[in-house]
Amino acid sequence: MTQHYNKNELLFTPLGGCGEIGMNLNLYGYQGKWLMVDLGITFDQDLGLDIIMPDPGFIEENKSDLVGLVLTHAHEDHIGAVPYLWQKLRCPIYATPFTAFLVKEKLREADLLEQATIHTIPLKGAFQLGPFDLSYVSLTHSIPEPNALIIKTPAGVVVHSGDWKLDHDPLIGEKTDENTLKELGEQGVLALVCDSTNVFEKGHTGSEADVRKNLIKLVSKQKGRVVISCFASNVARLSSALEAARETGRRVAFIGRSLHRMYEAARSCGYLDKVDFLEESEIKQVPPEELLLICTGSQGEPRAGLSRIANRQHPRAQLEEGDTVFFSSRKIPGNEHQIKAVQEALIHHGINVITDKEAPIHVSGHPSKGDLKEMYSWVKPKILVPVHGEVAHMREQAQFGKKCGIEQAIVPANGQVIALNPENPGVVDEVHWGRLALDGNQLVPRRSDMLRDRFKLSQAGVIFVTLTLRKGRLKGEPLISTMGVGEPDFVECSLDSIKDSIIDMIAQADEAHLNFEDGLKEMVRVTVRRALNALKGKKPLVVTHLVFL
Amino acid sequence: MTQHYNKNELLFTPLGGCGEIGMNLNLYGYQGKWLMVDLGITFDQDLGLDIIMPDPGFIEENKSDLVGLVLTHAHEDHIGAVPYLWQKLRCPIYATPFTAFLVKEKLREADLLEQATIHTIPLKGAFQLGPFDLSYVSLTHSIPEPNALIIKTPAGVVVHSGDWKLDHDPLIGEKTDENTLKELGEQGVLALVCDSTNVFEKGHTGSEADVRKNLIKLVSKQKGRVVISCFASNVARLSSALEAARETGRRVAFIGRSLHRMYEAARSCGYLDKVDFLEESEIKQVPPEELLLICTGSQGEPRAGLSRIANRQHPRAQLEEGDTVFFSSRKIPGNEHQIKAVQEALIHHGINVITDKEAPIHVSGHPSKGDLKEMYSWVKPKILVPVHGEVAHMREQAQFGKKCGIEQAIVPANGQVIALNPENPGVVDEVHWGRLALDGNQLVPRRSDMLRDRFKLSQAGVIFVTLTLRKGRLKGEPLISTMGVGEPDFVECSLDSIKDSIIDMIAQADEAHLNFEDGLKEMVRVTVRRALNALKGKKPLVVTHLVFL
Repeated sequence: MTQHYNKNELLFTPLGGCGEIGMNLNLYGYQGKWLMVDLGITFDQDLGLDIIMPDPGFIEENKSDLVGLVLTHAHEDHIGAVPYLWQKLRCPIYATPFTAFLVKEKLREADLLEQATIHTIPLKGAFQLGPFDLSYVSLTHSIPEPNALIIKTPAGVVVHSGDWKLDHDPLIGEKTDENTLKELGEQGVLALVCDSTNVFEKGHTGSEADVRKNLIKLVSKQKGRVVISCFASNVARLSSALEAARETGRRVAFIGRSLHRMYEAARSCGYLDKVDFLEESEIKQVPPEELLLICTGSQGEPRAGLSRIANRQHPRAQLEEGDTVFFSSRKIPGNEHQIKAVQEALIHHGINVITDKEAPIHVSGHPSKGDLKEMYSWVKPKILVPVHGEVAHMREQAQFGKKCGIEQAIVPANGQVIALNPENPGVVDEVHWGRLALDGNQLVPRRSDMLRDRFKLSQAGVIFVTLTLRKGRLKGEPLISTMGVGEPDFVECSLDSIKDSIIDMIAQADEAHLNFEDGLKEMVRVTVRRALNALKGKKPLVVTHLVFL
Repeated sequence: MTQHYNKNELLFTPLGGCGEIGMNLNLYGYQGKWLMVDLGITFDQDLGLDIIMPDPGFIEENKSDLVGLVLTHAHEDHIGAVPYLWQKLRCPIYATPFTAFLVKEKLREADLLEQATIHTIPLKGAFQLGPFDLSYVSLTHSIPEPNALIIKTPAGVVVHSGDWKLDHDPLIGEKTDENTLKELGEQGVLALVCDSTNVFEKGHTGSEADVRKNLIKLVSKQKGRVVISCFASNVARLSSALEAARETGRRVAFIGRSLHRMYEAARSCGYLDKVDFLEESEIKQVPPEELLLICTGSQGEPRAGLSRIANRQHPRAQLEEGDTVFFSSRKIPGNEHQIKAVQEALIHHGINVITDKEAPIHVSGHPSKGDLKEMYSWVKPKILVPVHGEVAHMREQAQFGKKCGIEQAIVPANGQVIALNPENPGVVDEVHWGRLALDGNQLVPRRSDMLRDRFKLSQAGVIFVTLTLRKGRLKGEPLISTMGVGEPDFVECSLDSIKDSIIDMIAQADEAHLNFEDGLKEMVRVTVRRALNALKGKKPLVVTHLVFL
């Protein structure tokens, strides 16, 4: 499949994460071999789908040339698809300890742990996969162990940034390994493939240490119960929330399964001390001024802890007027509505809501322009490849990189095969890419007739017709059921007219037509849709069963 | 129905627009009579519904006591429900000329114009409806003729603000009638029922005149085609876009039907001079640097002009790399996603996108805290009733009003009957309220089993089963169809197992069960859902038809 590419060029092919923020899947090609970096998901609530991920079809077809999957860090948009797609690829997986811990857990839940090989690489560790000489470089982000991946080949060195910012005091884990990056820059870097998420922000992204100070100050002012809602994977933030509790004499309970999971992962890697948590059952006995809940659901997820608390559906955690909820998080685009619903429910019950708009209690994990400029000055790449952004973000970073003196900048799109040629980098091919959705326990194409049908069902409902026929004539009345088509009154008044239109249609059709099943079904479909359109200005889907006696 | 209220108290009952921004419906009650102020809609794209509006059931039941519907201004969230709900109410309608023009057009389209009575009241006009002595006061907003309504009764005077801000140079129409408001304040105002939309902003809301200056300056810098996308009803903004074209020697075409409608309405009321527009068919002949398109679709509406241009589906208006689109508008919450999709499509084609984030080309039409404070100082109400906001906005205004020295502030909720008693204002009753949705050409309750079914259909699809039975035994195989349940491969492999489970179930059931239709259908439903859940971890809806021979 891929042998026609120039074997001496280093190729970059994103199958996810370019032109979108989420579901990262990056491929590097060299000497006929492919290296995969990250394999993430994105969340989507439409049409009963929870999770969307890149379609790995291209690399699946070339899996004999796939040397391995290397993970940069443990966010869902970088590792979330592993349990769903690994079986299609069956390649070894490489990750640093915290990430490996969480990926193993995912594979265990999917009953794949015994089949998969996961190599735990120490921080700053190096390893070789086929023609790729690899090493991790520690950066800072909003989760423990964010790594850049250094990819060395005879065709040049790539710094694949992963997600990062420059946090001078990340609270948890390593600081940015500035020296290694500078050394790489001195030796010559072909390309920097770099996070674009926060490129529209000027200056430098804030530090977790500032958030900690602010949280402690704000919590100390509260007289009632305090809830801090944040992303469970932001272990530094968890530790700040725990610190705020300690400093203000409050006892802590976690509300949300993922908090316990992250706590275990962080503990196992030595990032958190043991905490004497309250059990959920003990919460009610603690006086309001001595309680601090750390809670999932900052994105307004309907089933998460915070939403249940806001709607008074949580059996053990209850808030009252004068209590305070801190949203120590940003709004992920698309979640605005459900976040607002949770906040409105809290405010309705007299609970104070403090978000990052009201107080500096959140910082991004991604680089602002100031951070990017600094990174460029260290790495000095010949080519800048902005990724991890919508088109606007990637274009902005490309422009900014050039302004900062980088010679070449390429804005990639999913499915493009880009030759990282120092003289003349550019697109040399386009390969298949797409999106898979998890529907129940099945992976289905996101663009499919099946999901289009589901959308159509949601718009106008469906009508079921059963006709019993003998020798080309109706026997008995048509059976008709509707679902999502109209209010009971309307349906009742309409049924006769729909039946009549079917009976008339059949009376007028000649017998040959009536014995041609698909043709008759289509005639019923058209007849029923026309009747409904006349009755209410809408055309539902129609499904017909024919019983021939 | 309402005779049990104290006839000497002035009542305020919102049925829409409190706890939400959109679909305003306000009622004032006095001496057993009711006055309706505004009758709006909100937009919603879920489940094939376009439009949501308040359920007027309470006032419909009391329509013999309804003295009239008074409209403050012509935004859809204030007048949009008139063509859908007027028939339930059949009361006279009162509006100033621009609003009356647009409402008449809506009623004409709904074939109701000849039945309805619309009284066109001049700006600052006064009229009496039952026990309510009414007059309009001119304010400034983002549409021509924004009025406050002054409601005088022996129980006190209410200033119902409608939507407003303080614009010292609104470009179109009257300035804020400060003197009348101050006089009212001197005479004593019982209650100010006031717009909360923009209460979280400090200082004063900007002026349309500033936007005009900035638009002219920015357009003059463009070398390619220019598109300005804005709300069609913002006639001052349209006039600024026209002015920018005039100043920069560009010819103008409107893209979008509502622009033509608003232009006609504004012309008929003397707010715009005649413009020599390009026809859409002439657009292609105009050199890029001499063209300015004014375009609907700033909210990313998929069928509006801008979306079609962005996706290269507009037959006559085409943009190229280097052209520029100005979003002279805000993002209405809930539209973020579709706005982003349009912007990404434009950027993808190399078109510059400039929003109010990049340049000051939009101002809100609603009062910031500075505007509110000034209004309070003029009107000096005893009671502040924040409306036109989510709970957070209304609470914020209530707090702010008290801080500014207003004695009483009440945060209302839809359905509450609030006695505007100067000593002790408060809720005296709760009446029915709800939401109706337009589904095709029918009004249906937004919360209904029908729409719940449509939601369920969208989540997991539906399976349709027809069983033919003779004497309690299956005759032939079950007929099974699916829609939105799975990919064709999956469906094909599953059908046999679903059939088998139905056949087994029937074989094991005793004959009495099989002749009890509803019971048998329920058994089929449970059997099929169980089978599907085992196959894919999801339970679709199931509909069964029974043919008894």
